[in-house]
Amino acid sequence: MATTLGEQLAVSGKIKLADYDSRATTGFDGAKDDSAKSMTLLGEELSDQQERLFANGQAKTGDTKVLLLLQGMDTSGKGGIIRYAAGLVDPQGLSIYSFKKPTPEELEHDFLWRIDKHLPAAGKIGVFDRSQYEDVLIGRVRQLAEPAEIERRYDAINDFEKAFTDSGGVLIKCFLHITTDDQKERLAARLDDPTKHWKYNPGDIDERMLWDDYQRAYEIAIERCSTEWAPWHLIPSGRKWYRNWAVAALLAEKLRGLNLEWPPADFDVETEKARLTNT
Amino acid sequence: MATTLGEQLAVSGKIKLADYDSRATTGFDGAKDDSAKSMTLLGEELSDQQERLFANGQAKTGDTKVLLLLQGMDTSGKGGIIRYAAGLVDPQGLSIYSFKKPTPEELEHDFLWRIDKHLPAAGKIGVFDRSQYEDVLIGRVRQLAEPAEIERRYDAINDFEKAFTDSGGVLIKCFLHITTDDQKERLAARLDDPTKHWKYNPGDIDERMLWDDYQRAYEIAIERCSTEWAPWHLIPSGRKWYRNWAVAALLAEKLRGLNLEWPPADFDVETEKARLTNT
Repeated sequence: MATTLGEQLAVSGKIKLADYDSRATTGFDGAKDDSAKSMTLLGEELSDQQERLFANGQAKTGDTKVLLLLQGMDTSGKGGIIRYAAGLVDPQGLSIYSFKKPTPEELEHDFLWRIDKHLPAAGKIGVFDRSQYEDVLIGRVRQLAEPAEIERRYDAINDFEKAFTDSGGVLIKCFLHITTDDQKERLAARLDDPTKHWKYNPGDIDERMLWDDYQRAYEIAIERCSTEWAPWHLIPSGRKWYRNWAVAALLAEKLRGLNLEWPPADFDVETEKARLTNT
Repeated sequence: MATTLGEQLAVSGKIKLADYDSRATTGFDGAKDDSAKSMTLLGEELSDQQERLFANGQAKTGDTKVLLLLQGMDTSGKGGIIRYAAGLVDPQGLSIYSFKKPTPEELEHDFLWRIDKHLPAAGKIGVFDRSQYEDVLIGRVRQLAEPAEIERRYDAINDFEKAFTDSGGVLIKCFLHITTDDQKERLAARLDDPTKHWKYNPGDIDERMLWDDYQRAYEIAIERCSTEWAPWHLIPSGRKWYRNWAVAALLAEKLRGLNLEWPPADFDVETEKARLTNT
């Protein structure tokens, strides 16, 4: 039976990340050379769908908004997806936010306080480069909070995401899956290329040394927070072209499923035509 | 003598907008069919230049930022330029702001207060869809402030823009020039197409009836605020393809002129290679 790309990429329950092939091309019919054409077609569809979404936001005829949430180890390609997949649509319709180490002010609030502030408005496609999940990933691995507090956060995240999807939000959570070898190769490439040195941070190696702990933290986050209203998707990200295609295709599939109509005129068209003629 | 596109499009002093052809293709060598290829090449260059700018912002090796300021009558194409010209670069590097009717809070402050808040940070390409100039355009035409206050604003704008360019800002001001006939045709097209009704507002006709007043207000703004540090450019915008090309080409020309280098590594490359090898 034909299934959607979303269904094919969804993950939930107890999983072992090591069982997943980072170089899989799930749902893509063809080879790398075919992906450029497919991206062009996806770009046209995404552009149309995004404009319908935006139009409804502007016309206040709907409260729908979309949030593409990206998580993954360093070099897994969060930035690449924003550039090559999100970059296919009109930038006016995007609301991109990159979460860094929390500021002192943010730390004085609940961990979801800063997340809430950056949720997309109606009509927008939000993109989160890292997210609330950092607080159960680095938070867990680096023991930045008490175990009981980390435990509390999984349920708090589920409730928060439920409130978002209950109020017109469509949440697309993507874990960009790479192996430790994939990362080694990409970090080496950054070190070899002076035009990429600015992307490199010695702290990346410190995090890399905790690879297994991070993988385990991701497995727990997927087990606890892959819900019916906001499932996690595992994006095989060992091949950059597939990773970009998969996220663009997943976004297009979700937008298509909304059956967005153009908003009706809130004025009398014939009256306005007559007014225009007289100018 | 060959001149830059910026020099060809710059306007200053006393000008009559009616003397300018909205369908000119200043600086473009070829016909409409050649513009797609030129846009692809410009996209590649802009993408590279934008990444250099962004890299320096991230690495804190420079305070350079760029601001593309767009003004023009309804339907002149501010949105189209953001979609097709600014949309050529990585959306992570853009900071787009669309100025609407001031909020009550904004009205309690000086007119530049809200503008200042949305200036791009180092490494970013800001795009203003409308700007501080609204306060000497609609502000003048609709007499939203006392004449003495309107007069004060021209100098205040010049000082504000000087401070921006003195602190690493590159300001590219574009007036999108169309004729009253161009606008009539485009408003009629919006009324004829149900997928474009959401873009139409009956208030657009009210503003259209003040066309000559607005043209005069633009002429005064250009006379008073086309400075050495922030000249106005007149973009013939009767042909959409040329308008998009001209702004993309102008942006590329300004970025190219900055001779942006990739930031140097702030770590020891050999040490990091050795650390990586050992993981």
